[in-house]
Amino acid sequence: MKLSNRVLAMQESPVRKLVPIATKVKKTGKKVYHLNIGQPDIETPKVFMDAINNYDSRVIKYSFSQGEPVLIKAIQDYFKRDNVIFDDDEILITNGGSEALTFTTIALCDPEDEILVPEPFYTNYNGFTSAVNVHIKPITTKAENGFHLPSKSDIVKLITPKTKAILFSNPGNPTGTILRQDELEMLAEIAKEHNIYIISDEVYRGYAFDGLQSISMSTIKGVEDRVIIIESVSKRYSACGARIGSIQSKNKELMHNILKLCQARLCVATLEQIGAAALYRLEDSYTAEIRDEYQARRDIVYQTLQEIPGIVCEKPSGAFYVVAKLPVQNAEDFIIWMLEEFELDGETIMLAPAEGFYATKGLGKDEVRIAYVLNTKDMARAMFILKKGLEKYNQ
Amino acid sequence: MKLSNRVLAMQESPVRKLVPIATKVKKTGKKVYHLNIGQPDIETPKVFMDAINNYDSRVIKYSFSQGEPVLIKAIQDYFKRDNVIFDDDEILITNGGSEALTFTTIALCDPEDEILVPEPFYTNYNGFTSAVNVHIKPITTKAENGFHLPSKSDIVKLITPKTKAILFSNPGNPTGTILRQDELEMLAEIAKEHNIYIISDEVYRGYAFDGLQSISMSTIKGVEDRVIIIESVSKRYSACGARIGSIQSKNKELMHNILKLCQARLCVATLEQIGAAALYRLEDSYTAEIRDEYQARRDIVYQTLQEIPGIVCEKPSGAFYVVAKLPVQNAEDFIIWMLEEFELDGETIMLAPAEGFYATKGLGKDEVRIAYVLNTKDMARAMFILKKGLEKYNQ
Repeated sequence: MKLSNRVLAMQESPVRKLVPIATKVKKTGKKVYHLNIGQPDIETPKVFMDAINNYDSRVIKYSFSQGEPVLIKAIQDYFKRDNVIFDDDEILITNGGSEALTFTTIALCDPEDEILVPEPFYTNYNGFTSAVNVHIKPITTKAENGFHLPSKSDIVKLITPKTKAILFSNPGNPTGTILRQDELEMLAEIAKEHNIYIISDEVYRGYAFDGLQSISMSTIKGVEDRVIIIESVSKRYSACGARIGSIQSKNKELMHNILKLCQARLCVATLEQIGAAALYRLEDSYTAEIRDEYQARRDIVYQTLQEIPGIVCEKPSGAFYVVAKLPVQNAEDFIIWMLEEFELDGETIMLAPAEGFYATKGLGKDEVRIAYVLNTKDMARAMFILKKGLEKYNQ
Repeated sequence: MKLSNRVLAMQESPVRKLVPIATKVKKTGKKVYHLNIGQPDIETPKVFMDAINNYDSRVIKYSFSQGEPVLIKAIQDYFKRDNVIFDDDEILITNGGSEALTFTTIALCDPEDEILVPEPFYTNYNGFTSAVNVHIKPITTKAENGFHLPSKSDIVKLITPKTKAILFSNPGNPTGTILRQDELEMLAEIAKEHNIYIISDEVYRGYAFDGLQSISMSTIKGVEDRVIIIESVSKRYSACGARIGSIQSKNKELMHNILKLCQARLCVATLEQIGAAALYRLEDSYTAEIRDEYQARRDIVYQTLQEIPGIVCEKPSGAFYVVAKLPVQNAEDFIIWMLEEFELDGETIMLAPAEGFYATKGLGKDEVRIAYVLNTKDMARAMFILKKGLEKYNQ
C-alpha cells in the first residue's frame, strides 16, 4: 500500500502549513492581519459576473480543449497592445497559471530533466515540477542585490545536458523584483546558445511601480520560438478563484503537443472563461489604477521596514510582495511567536516564511515574504504591529 | 528544441480528431447529428446558476485547496444515501474527474508503474497516465460478453510487481456496462491478495436501466483503505462545462498526500463549486427522471441496432453509451464516409471510432461508440440514418 516516491517527496505548502496555527489563534478572538498569502482584497471587476450572468447557461457544456474562442480573442488583443501577435493556435487556456506551468513542464521535460529557476521563487514551482519528476536547479539571487540576476557566467555554469528551460516570474513572486531589458536579453542569449526554452511567468504584469515597465518576454526578438508566456487573471484582475490561466507561444509544434494534454482533461470551466474574456477587455487604465493602489501600499511597507534596525530589503518594484531579511535567527519561529505570543490591542500579523521559496538548503531562514494585499490603513497598522513585535522579540 | 518523449508519445484524442472533418461538412449545409461525444443535451438544473448568482462575488477569492466546505458537505450527504461515511479529510475537490484521475495516478505510481484497466476504456485514461509516465495494461473484455470482466485468473495473470491499481468506470464509458456485485467483490479480492488499489470511476452512477443498481465500490466491505472513488457533476447533472470532480477515499495517508498536489495548484474555481454543491443536493428523483429519459433513448438505439444485420451488441445497462461491432472492416473509414459521402435529406451522423478505446493493438477496428445524448426524436432519426448509411456502404 506504498504511495509513490514522487508524491511522498513533495513538500507541504510552506505558505499554507502555518494556517492551522492562525486558525487556532483567531478562535481566541485575536485579530490576525494576513500578509502571508497573495489573495488581494481588491474587488473583482463587475464585468466578470455580468458576462457570466448574460451567458446562455441552460446547458453548461464542455468548452473547447484549447479554450473559448471569445477568451482567446481577448488575450490576443491584450498582447496586441505590445505589438505582439499570437495566432489562434498559439494560445491555450488552462486551469490557472498552475496548470499552464504543469503542462509546459510535462511537454518540455522527461523524468530527471532540469529547469533553472532564480531563487527565491514561487514555492508551487516545486510542486508543478516534482509531481512530474522534474528537478529545479536554483539560480541564487540575493536581498542585498534586490534579487536581480547574477552574471551570465554564473547562470551558464548551472546548465547540464538535462537542462530544458529557464523559468522565472516577472514581476517576481516573492521578491517584487522587475527584470530589466538587459536581464531579459541575457536570458535570451543563454537560451539560444544552449538551446533551451524560456518560461516567463507574467501573471503580475502591469504591476510595476515608480514609472517602471514590466517588459513581456514575448517582446524580445530572436527567441520567439523558444519563449513560453504564462498568463493568469488571478492577480492582475483580482480573480484568484476564477482559475483562468493560459499558455502563449509562437512555437506551433510545442503548442500542438500541449493541446494533447488539454484534450485529455477536456476543457477549462466554461463560465469562468466567459467572465475572464471580459476582464482581458478592461482598459490599461484599470490596471494603472490598481497599480497606484499597490504602489501606495508598497510605500507604507517599505517605509516601515526602513525604520526597523537590522532589516535588509531593497525597494521592490512590482507585483505586491517584498522579501525582507529580518534581524532574527529563524523567521518561521518569529512568525509563530507573532501569532501565538504577541499582540497589540488584541491584534497581530501573519507573514510567510521565505525559506520555502528557496531550493538551496539553508537559504532564506531569516527572511519573510510580506504580501501587501490589504488597504493602506490596514497595511499601516499591520506594519506597525510588525515593528513593535520585532522590538519585543529581540529584547 | 526537442520536446519530451512523454508528450510526443501521447495520442491525439480519437474522439476529437475527426472534428475538423465534421466542421468542414457542416459548412456545406449538411446537418450532422453528434453521437460522437458525451455532451448531453439535458439542461443543467437551474439550482446551479441560482447558487452562483446568490453567492457574494465581490472578490472572487481562492477557495480552499481541498475544496469549498459547502461542496464537501454536499458530497458527504450524497454518499450517506448509501450509508457510506466520508470524513472531511476523505474528500478532495478537483478540476473535473480528469484532475482527480491525474492526481490519483501521480500519488499511486512512479514512472514505469502500471495500472490495470478493462478495455475498451475511456480514452482519456491514456492521457492521464502517459503524461506522467505510467502504463495502462488492458484487461480485454468483449462485445459478445456485454463487456463484463473475464475470470479472476485471467486478470491476476496480468499483475506484475509494477502494478499499483485497477482502474475502471462503472457504469462503463464507452460500453454502458454495469459491473455486478460479484464482479466488484472479485476485484476487491484481487486487490487484497495482490496489495493494490482500486480506482472506481463512478461519474455515470445513477444511470442504470431496467431496474438495475449501479453499485458504488465504496459500499464493498474489507477494502475501504484501498478504494478510491472518482466523482464528477459533468454527466449526472449535465454540467460538463463546470469541471467539478472529486476524489473520495478512506485512506487518510493517501488523501493527505494528494492534498499536497491540490495545494500546488491552489484550488478549483470557487463559483463552480458553489453551483456544484446545489447539484449534489438534488433528490434522487432528479437522477431517476433523467435516467428514464436515457433509458428511452437506449431502447431506440438498441432496437435499431438489432434491426441491422451483422451488428454485435449486448443491450447496455447504464451510462449513455453503447459499443457496437459493425458489419464493416474499418469503422473509422465508415464514420468518415458517413460524414463526407452520405446524406439522407441533407442529414448525416457522426460516431466515435472505438479503436481508440482499446490499448491492445488491432482490437475495436470494426466497432463504434454511440453516445445517446440527443432527445428521443433526434435519436430515432439519427439511428435511422445509421441504418440507411450502413445499407448503402455495404452495397
